Amino acid sequence: MEGKEEDVSLGANKFSERQPLGTAAQTQDKDYKEPPPALLFEPGELSSWSFYRAGIAEFMATFLFLYITILTVMGVKRSTSKCTTVGIQGIAWSFGGMIFALVYCTAGISGGHINPAVTFGLLLGRKLSLTRAVWYIVMQCLGAICGAGVVKGFQPSEYQLRGGGANTVAHGYTKGSGLGAEIIGTFVLVYTVFSATDAKRNARDSHVPILAPLPIGFAVFLVHLATIPITGTGINPARSLGTAIIYNRDDAWDDHWIYWVGPFIGAALAALYHVVVIRAIPFKSKS
Amino acid sequence: MEGKEEDVSLGANKFSERQPLGTAAQTQDKDYKEPPPALLFEPGELSSWSFYRAGIAEFMATFLFLYITILTVMGVKRSTSKCTTVGIQGIAWSFGGMIFALVYCTAGISGGHINPAVTFGLLLGRKLSLTRAVWYIVMQCLGAICGAGVVKGFQPSEYQLRGGGANTVAHGYTKGSGLGAEIIGTFVLVYTVFSATDAKRNARDSHVPILAPLPIGFAVFLVHLATIPITGTGINPARSLGTAIIYNRDDAWDDHWIYWVGPFIGAALAALYHVVVIRAIPFKSKS
Amino acid sequence: MEGKEEDVSLGANKFSERQPLGTAAQTQDKDYKEPPPALLFEPGELSSWSFYRAGIAEFMATFLFLYITILTVMGVKRSTSKCTTVGIQGIAWSFGGMIFALVYCTAGISGGHINPAVTFGLLLGRKLSLTRAVWYIVMQCLGAICGAGVVKGFQPSEYQLRGGGANTVAHGYTKGSGLGAEIIGTFVLVYTVFSATDAKRNARDSHVPILAPLPIGFAVFLVHLATIPITGTGINPARSLGTAIIYNRDDAWDDHWIYWVGPFIGAALAALYHVVVIRAIPFKSKS
Amino acid sequence: MEGKEEDVSLGANKFSERQPLGTAAQTQDKDYKEPPPALLFEPGELSSWSFYRAGIAEFMATFLFLYITILTVMGVKRSTSKCTTVGIQGIAWSFGGMIFALVYCTAGISGGHINPAVTFGLLLGRKLSLTRAVWYIVMQCLGAICGAGVVKGFQPSEYQLRGGGANTVAHGYTKGSGLGAEIIGTFVLVYTVFSATDAKRNARDSHVPILAPLPIGFAVFLVHLATIPITGTGINPARSLGTAIIYNRDDAWDDHWIYWVGPFIGAALAALYHVVVIRAIPFKSKS
Repeated sequence: MEGKEEDVSLGANKFSERQPLGTAAQTQDKDYKEPPPALLFEPGELSSWSFYRAGIAEFMATFLFLYITILTVMGVKRSTSKCTTVGIQGIAWSFGGMIFALVYCTAGISGGHINPAVTFGLLLGRKLSLTRAVWYIVMQCLGAICGAGVVKGFQPSEYQLRGGGANTVAHGYTKGSGLGAEIIGTFVLVYTVFSATDAKRNARDSHVPILAPLPIGFAVFLVHLATIPITGTGINPARSLGTAIIYNRDDAWDDHWIYWVGPFIGAALAALYHVVVIRAIPFKSKS
Repeated sequence: MEGKEEDVSLGANKFSERQPLGTAAQTQDKDYKEPPPALLFEPGELSSWSFYRAGIAEFMATFLFLYITILTVMGVKRSTSKCTTVGIQGIAWSFGGMIFALVYCTAGISGGHINPAVTFGLLLGRKLSLTRAVWYIVMQCLGAICGAGVVKGFQPSEYQLRGGGANTVAHGYTKGSGLGAEIIGTFVLVYTVFSATDAKRNARDSHVPILAPLPIGFAVFLVHLATIPITGTGINPARSLGTAIIYNRDDAWDDHWIYWVGPFIGAALAALYHVVVIRAIPFKSKS
Repeated sequence: MEGKEEDVSLGANKFSERQPLGTAAQTQDKDYKEPPPALLFEPGELSSWSFYRAGIAEFMATFLFLYITILTVMGVKRSTSKCTTVGIQGIAWSFGGMIFALVYCTAGISGGHINPAVTFGLLLGRKLSLTRAVWYIVMQCLGAICGAGVVKGFQPSEYQLRGGGANTVAHGYTKGSGLGAEIIGTFVLVYTVFSATDAKRNARDSHVPILAPLPIGFAVFLVHLATIPITGTGINPARSLGTAIIYNRDDAWDDHWIYWVGPFIGAALAALYHVVVIRAIPFKSKS
Repeated sequence: MEGKEEDVSLGANKFSERQPLGTAAQTQDKDYKEPPPALLFEPGELSSWSFYRAGIAEFMATFLFLYITILTVMGVKRSTSKCTTVGIQGIAWSFGGMIFALVYCTAGISGGHINPAVTFGLLLGRKLSLTRAVWYIVMQCLGAICGAGVVKGFQPSEYQLRGGGANTVAHGYTKGSGLGAEIIGTFVLVYTVFSATDAKRNARDSHVPILAPLPIGFAVFLVHLATIPITGTGINPARSLGTAIIYNRDDAWDDHWIYWVGPFIGAALAALYHVVVIRAIPFKSKS
């Protein structure tokens, strides 16, 4: 399939935009080469240091992610007057900003997933092996548990009293609405991940840098602005699992399935949208 | 007209700035080629997959735009104390941030308009064909209706009670002020779109990346900061139409014309400013 | 002096940093050529269209700057509860964000000053001619007056009642403190302008883009965060003059000198710091 | 050791990520050359102007950093209603935004540390000489004292009444929690500094700009969002020292050791993590 990108039955890319915003396009995709899909099991991967290092980097990033964000949530919840805190908007900045900074820092080491839903979406898009995906998800969940644990360690009783940053569906919303909010929210995130890191786009705009961590971080921020009042915003099963385990009360566990099923469905839809609509891979002639 | 950019009777570009902020200029425009204006009807465009894909991308982007932003508006409106929400500033971030992320993601696919006023302005600037402009505007409006519809689906009665995110002119302002605010607000947006994506600038700064989605998103954010208290800020007819149809009450429909007439006038003025003042195209000698 | 940058008696640049943050340096400054200082009167400049176009761009940018920012200020002031507005922080975003977007948009046309203090500082640094500096400052002031005028036009009596966005020194601060705050605040801005647009830096990091408008916009935002409670934050004489003329009451005029003297001193100090400390131009051997 | 990066016993970098987010990787590290570790005492450094200029730049940056941030803190503290101020979130923006702008401005002059903990971490990572590190830390502390002094000069009695922006551990938290918060907070910052300025990464993505000041500034912002309610957030011994000296009351001095010990431990851990895990330097075969 490599090198035959133009060979699409419906004539994809025949009429490119005259002036796409934010790109210096106009050049042809002449140097684009579709990367081959990742194997499910990559022989030799398990004996490379970079494989283990990537997992450690995912652990560290998810640990710092939970630590900073859940500490911010606790700081807001503890206060009787929200005006003397960073507020709900500050919480949204915390989640989005950490993803921006951490994706920036770990992109070169592990790809910067920091989220099992992202890993799952990229696995469906054949961007990494199944072995690596499982390894990442395990490390992300362990990092999240440790991060939430340190926050609880600072003030154990306050942590339990204020909900522990655990995700639950708010009063006034059905489980179905919560599930829907998680599905679309994760779709927004994984859609941004796929769009911002599209190898084809990189090839075309070869001299135009793709500062991908910024829109990805913003996507997380924006979903939090919208859905904190509904589900507390999960869109990251590791984040939901870590707080649920450390908080460990029934109200967090009762809704917990939503924060795995929703994100995984959303990620799958985003992968599907990218592969079918944007890349039109099913319509391409086989090489 | 191509390749004769310098041939302007008033001596345009003879004295360029010594040190324009934010550019590495100093080089001459030697490799700049004015792109030819788009045809009104591009033969063959309708038989290319990229044409339909671009429309789908506009639908999806406008759908996600309305979903996230109107959900954020609802979260703020539902609460009795604004301090326990992301606040009006959070709403402004939501609109601006979504435009940033979505323009970033769809720029390479459809040009990233996500707004009939932007499409209209770029049409006047001859950046895309009439066929494509109509196709985009239809898809943007459909996407907006679906996005607002999903938000209403989460809490139908709350949605109707809290105004449904529909645009109306606030008490204390005349219709004329509202129209003026929409005109200048859209001017700011489309002026930024034209400035940030100027093909000439790209050519001159060929190795300097133009991170255009960032100033465009900021423009949307800033207009919201300023005009939410006046018109609720439209500057995007698809956004106003989507909420008006889903909310469907007289107060939204009464002012609705303002949110089409204003943005289209503002976009036309911005296109005029760009073509006449910045590019000085009318003053150029014909080649 | 050109091409002899290394020829500095104190050995400047002999020991460059090993790993400057945020640069890909390590390369030598081999392709750097100090631009010649601008003439005070550039013959021929007055007969070029780009000279007039630059003035129009400064007018338009300052007009939009005042319109958006003062409208945001009015929206916050009109409300009895600050929690139902974008808040003081939103005002700071408005000023900083507009400078970011407008510098981005006009950098290639006029250099993107939008502020007489910036023009004055760059004049002292010999980056533009005196003719051009005067032309820019006149157009900036006219743009500011028009921008504030449109805001007043929306609600004339409210505008007068709420202070019209005019700069005054707050109760509890002496005139001296206000002057000091304006001096240091403008120093921060013009220091950032010089640092972020240093031609030498551009040469050294030739493939590294300098996204200068972002730190410049942030500098404006940060000074507003700090000094809105003291002087309302001027650091831009055009902004202070425009609102003073449209508001036209004694309390605005009484302190008005502070908003010209302070910014011009601050800009001069920043130019001095850049020329003497950073570039060490006085210590260089003459060529 | 140079040029033998691949020669790692565990097979580091054998399996690089297929599509790291935010990078255009896929190319090999062929042009990467590990910079040699800095000498402890660099002969000749003391006779170069750039050495002294770097110290002056660190002084100036830390001065402006303290001035803007502590003035923002005072503006918030003085007000009885937090809603009429920029709020705690505005304080976090002030610290993070200043670091972003100042690192951007001084990166090419001094490396842009503006923080003794960053200097200490980079010293451990052998990025600068001991002489230079001591010189930087002295100048940073002097700059911080002057910055806080100017803020006090504006309103001396208010400054003393409102805590002077000095760092103390909040009621309800143990000294141990405060120390932990400082350690992890500084770890986040120095981890970001190392990751974002990794010379290896720069080499690999040679045409991809590394806008490192942005994630570094964000890291500071995010740590403030999380730990202002606990320690007031130090993570910068110069900032804590400057306010402690100018404020000069027992409550600030009692906890002061935490703001030196915590950041230095955090910086050391981040340097260790970078050297051992990310670069795997101890496991490399000697050349």
